[in-house]
Amino acid sequence: MTKGRLEAFSDGVLAIIITIMVLELKVPHTADLSGLRPLIPVFLSYVLSFIYIGIYWNNHHHLLHTAGKINGKILWANLHLLFWLSLVPFVTSWIGENHFASIPMLFYGVVLLMAGFAYSILQNLIIAHNGRDSLLSKAVGYDLKGKLSIGLYLSAIIIALYVEWFSGLIYIGVAIMWLIPDTRIERLVDKD
Amino acid sequence: MTKGRLEAFSDGVLAIIITIMVLELKVPHTADLSGLRPLIPVFLSYVLSFIYIGIYWNNHHHLLHTAGKINGKILWANLHLLFWLSLVPFVTSWIGENHFASIPMLFYGVVLLMAGFAYSILQNLIIAHNGRDSLLSKAVGYDLKGKLSIGLYLSAIIIALYVEWFSGLIYIGVAIMWLIPDTRIERLVDKD
Amino acid sequence: MTKGRLEAFSDGVLAIIITIMVLELKVPHTADLSGLRPLIPVFLSYVLSFIYIGIYWNNHHHLLHTAGKINGKILWANLHLLFWLSLVPFVTSWIGENHFASIPMLFYGVVLLMAGFAYSILQNLIIAHNGRDSLLSKAVGYDLKGKLSIGLYLSAIIIALYVEWFSGLIYIGVAIMWLIPDTRIERLVDKD
Amino acid sequence: MTKGRLEAFSDGVLAIIITIMVLELKVPHTADLSGLRPLIPVFLSYVLSFIYIGIYWNNHHHLLHTAGKINGKILWANLHLLFWLSLVPFVTSWIGENHFASIPMLFYGVVLLMAGFAYSILQNLIIAHNGRDSLLSKAVGYDLKGKLSIGLYLSAIIIALYVEWFSGLIYIGVAIMWLIPDTRIERLVDKD
Repeated sequence: MTKGRLEAFSDGVLAIIITIMVLELKVPHTADLSGLRPLIPVFLSYVLSFIYIGIYWNNHHHLLHTAGKINGKILWANLHLLFWLSLVPFVTSWIGENHFASIPMLFYGVVLLMAGFAYSILQNLIIAHNGRDSLLSKAVGYDLKGKLSIGLYLSAIIIALYVEWFSGLIYIGVAIMWLIPDTRIERLVDKD
Repeated sequence: MTKGRLEAFSDGVLAIIITIMVLELKVPHTADLSGLRPLIPVFLSYVLSFIYIGIYWNNHHHLLHTAGKINGKILWANLHLLFWLSLVPFVTSWIGENHFASIPMLFYGVVLLMAGFAYSILQNLIIAHNGRDSLLSKAVGYDLKGKLSIGLYLSAIIIALYVEWFSGLIYIGVAIMWLIPDTRIERLVDKD
Repeated sequence: MTKGRLEAFSDGVLAIIITIMVLELKVPHTADLSGLRPLIPVFLSYVLSFIYIGIYWNNHHHLLHTAGKINGKILWANLHLLFWLSLVPFVTSWIGENHFASIPMLFYGVVLLMAGFAYSILQNLIIAHNGRDSLLSKAVGYDLKGKLSIGLYLSAIIIALYVEWFSGLIYIGVAIMWLIPDTRIERLVDKD
Repeated sequence: MTKGRLEAFSDGVLAIIITIMVLELKVPHTADLSGLRPLIPVFLSYVLSFIYIGIYWNNHHHLLHTAGKINGKILWANLHLLFWLSLVPFVTSWIGENHFASIPMLFYGVVLLMAGFAYSILQNLIIAHNGRDSLLSKAVGYDLKGKLSIGLYLSAIIIALYVEWFSGLIYIGVAIMWLIPDTRIERLVDKD
């Protein structure tokens, strides 16, 4: 029950985050194709952020699925994660409206980095609280993918100051890396 | 449980999509009937898209109801469907504000077409994953209605370039065809 | 399960409707009390509509609670109700921004009237589908309150053309009449 | 079931409240750091209100968890709480856009005060309705933290007229006081 409400609230916030981003796709006032052209970068940034929020929802889903019990600290770690994800629509619009310029690309990385940290705090707290049931603990293991993402976000943040399109490639790369759902957990749950 | 969260998240996204469309009905600054006149096309496009989202929610509901188990691929196929549906408010405003002009009507069809494809991918993945329990598989059968819709969307997209009001009729026609809930599944579930 | 999703979707839509209305309370650009003055009618209309949506949520809650089974028709009757309720934020802003002028007050009544009809259709379909279990049927009885509301909305719509503040009083009166939760159903459920 | 829907609806409203606040972070039209500077007070007020809504969600969660049964009065007391919380985005933007000026800071306190009262009404009604099961009643006890908050909000409202930054400190202080989740209830539930 307790876990159910945490999931329901997170689902609600993630559903709203993913949907309000589309409001930045301002309807063109003309009825021809030329009206769509300025929307292309906004649309591309929307696609990327939609995938990121989708990845977080997916992994959050698997993470909570294995978590038997939760406590007050976990509730707050979850809110902390949702806080950083709630800033995704802001940086998404910022990079889209400025054609992936340097400073916005840097801040896009900062928000992803903080969300990455927040997710990893949440994961560690859930593992600590469910120690005896080591299913999640085994599934996550050394969490190479998580640590690699943090490192890549950090590089992309610095690179954004010099070659903005390359840090864009890094964000796309990390997304692709995570698009493959966390089958480690899925496999272990199935075996269970 | 896993299925429950997929449904809850989808419900959240669909509920937000259906409700933010109404924000395009900009409140007139005058208090007389003349203020409502320019809103009529926006209102009509809202009604049509409300019905489409309602149809998707309804069919999604029946589809998931029969699905016993889900996996990572199904989660992503579902997000893919939600992505295309999240673009419905955008094209809805676009056709409404431009009095159902040619290019917007074409893109309205493109979004419906992509959503139709996405739904059919989701359906196939669920059938593949729940093969043994052939309830859904039998209910869907050859999926004539789904295939017919794809064909009609395609025609409407091309027709929009020449006779925009006729492609509008096609969108209305497809909606009416689906308004009748998917009783094939309902009947089979009841028999079950 | 089926009923659960209908409730979840309705909760989502009603939660969004009730919350987006507050977006019409545009933040004043000054930091003094004078900035709040023009917001007073918008605030009052927000309070009234918040109560109306609250009433619908409350009654919807009791209505579905007694409904044992639902079918495709009920799903659509429910969407029909949500459609009219989704127009409440629009008419709420309209009456608020125009200081409860005649035509907006009339349309506020039209939306309430249509929502009232939609609710009564939903109620009748649920009663028809759950006939054997006559709990709801007994609780609703002749549905005097529902019929009275329809009549009062109709009068308020006509009166709005002549004495707009009086039709405002009627809307307030109907809200007060419903504020008392539908204890008929509650009492019968408790007895059960 | 009844309780479940109350929780689901509240989760929905709180999730939307917490997320629409971020819409006030208007995307800067420039791509440099200077564009972010005017957003700093808006961001700070967002953080504070995010934490407050998080606290309410958290405590609401614990409160409902212990509530065995609910009734019509509790449904309305809950809507009353949601009404005041729905005004949080409004006052949050107002203090942010006016750099925490006197009158907006006062109204921020008024909304927190009313939400505090509303929460305490809800809590008392739940205790009254679940009297026999005194778990919640014991956990809440004399409710020192709740009463202290009310007192502090009242002081902050008056202080806002003279030293606005100090009433800001009080709002931060109350948030910190509540950030520690209501372990009284948690502990008792665990013991149970």
